[in-house]
Amino acid sequence: MLTTPLQSPGVKSVLVRRRGDRLERDMVVVEEPLEIHVNGQPLVVTMRTPGHDAELAAGFLFGEGVLNDAIGLSSVQVQPGNGQRDTQIRVANFLGDTVNVTLKEDPAEPSVALAKREFRATAACGVCGKTEIGDLDSDLPAIVPMEADPDFLETLPGALRRAQKLFEATGGIHAAGIFNRHGSLLCSYEDIGRHNAVDKAVGHFVLKNGVPLAEHVLVVSGRAGFELVQKALKASIPVMVSVGAASSLAVQMATDAGMALYSFAGPGHGNLHVKD
Amino acid sequence: MLTTPLQSPGVKSVLVRRRGDRLERDMVVVEEPLEIHVNGQPLVVTMRTPGHDAELAAGFLFGEGVLNDAIGLSSVQVQPGNGQRDTQIRVANFLGDTVNVTLKEDPAEPSVALAKREFRATAACGVCGKTEIGDLDSDLPAIVPMEADPDFLETLPGALRRAQKLFEATGGIHAAGIFNRHGSLLCSYEDIGRHNAVDKAVGHFVLKNGVPLAEHVLVVSGRAGFELVQKALKASIPVMVSVGAASSLAVQMATDAGMALYSFAGPGHGNLHVKD
Repeated sequence: MLTTPLQSPGVKSVLVRRRGDRLERDMVVVEEPLEIHVNGQPLVVTMRTPGHDAELAAGFLFGEGVLNDAIGLSSVQVQPGNGQRDTQIRVANFLGDTVNVTLKEDPAEPSVALAKREFRATAACGVCGKTEIGDLDSDLPAIVPMEADPDFLETLPGALRRAQKLFEATGGIHAAGIFNRHGSLLCSYEDIGRHNAVDKAVGHFVLKNGVPLAEHVLVVSGRAGFELVQKALKASIPVMVSVGAASSLAVQMATDAGMALYSFAGPGHGNLHVKD
Repeated sequence: MLTTPLQSPGVKSVLVRRRGDRLERDMVVVEEPLEIHVNGQPLVVTMRTPGHDAELAAGFLFGEGVLNDAIGLSSVQVQPGNGQRDTQIRVANFLGDTVNVTLKEDPAEPSVALAKREFRATAACGVCGKTEIGDLDSDLPAIVPMEADPDFLETLPGALRRAQKLFEATGGIHAAGIFNRHGSLLCSYEDIGRHNAVDKAVGHFVLKNGVPLAEHVLVVSGRAGFELVQKALKASIPVMVSVGAASSLAVQMATDAGMALYSFAGPGHGNLHVKD
């Protein structure tokens, strides 16, 4: 946990002109590219908030079926870019951060994809970049439904919110947290991309060989879209809580799978989605 | 403009259990895959809110440099999927909607990408799916700065908000609108993906052969990320207003290009970003 958000690589001071022409400094969320390499091959770039790149890479690769657990992992090395983070970020000729994930062996089915470099099509947000709708399909484990009491679920966004140090500083960053069934927050991560925040949270457990998360609750600070439900189901998470709205496809995927999806969650309110 | 959001393909009724165990119906935003084909080749899938697929495809292809104007366009045909929208959406075996864009001739440089199918790497969100950081670079036209009076800019989010019919119904959808320099809202679009909302708004003008938008203002309902600033710059838009926060990279790109980026905009407040 950060002692002060001002020291985090996730925030940056910028110059703004406020009403009345006052020039002041303000904090914004850092958004920077990260290249994820697997076994030496560049796989994908994601725009992310720096800070937990190993977790991000592990969670992303888990979600894509390239990495199943920590046992399959030989090493995860984060290689910083050219250090322009605090002074100047240029997209052209910018030597960005890279995370190198070395697997004990080439993943079976995905290695085909890797070899064909088809995997380029697989985007960090879980959807875009894919070429055909059939590509969206993914093998998801069956989940074991878990009872979800609204009185309990509605307390979780507040607990996550208290852990959102970068949001406090900037007002513009997503968060994802994983709670156990007793409501203890086991980990939380912030990122400019909601999918990255979820990848980091799942990746936290992948690195500890702690998936599946069959008795856990995923809480997200924003909306529940298809790709987040997909990532949660991939990790066998039976309950998901979102502060914002759920999409039609998120509702359908969750209710089809027996996941309890609780949207617009907060003190005294929330919608538990029910199979239609 | 929709007469009532309930008749829109962009919203769907779902069953929810509210506090006190009441089962009720609620409206959620529709999120569904769209395949964009160019000259008969599947190019990319984006998860989008149905409704303005021609605009979405035109704006996306413009942003990626595949389509420069309406003159280069032979036809845009939207082909509906198997009509399961209102009953059941399955990702597996789901015959989704497709938009076929036929260009008068193959685009020069991007045709190489198409031929190599490298374009799969190009994601609808402008970033993810790309393999290396160098891929993020894109040719952006120089923009002509336009004076942006905060008193004027702060009124625009409210005007956009009044056009957000689907947000009104669901509480969970992004919007993008393009205003002229006198503050008239020329077009606005809503989508579950903020990048799609911007693509639709720019695409609106691409289809009318109305780009560059050199004296226009883009207003977005959410945060200003790198990919939105990039899309705006590509259309030569000199002023961008966001209701939410801006990211570090968005600020840098905008201020480097001479674009006026006004974040956290609303009545009496806003931050005009200034080159550091």
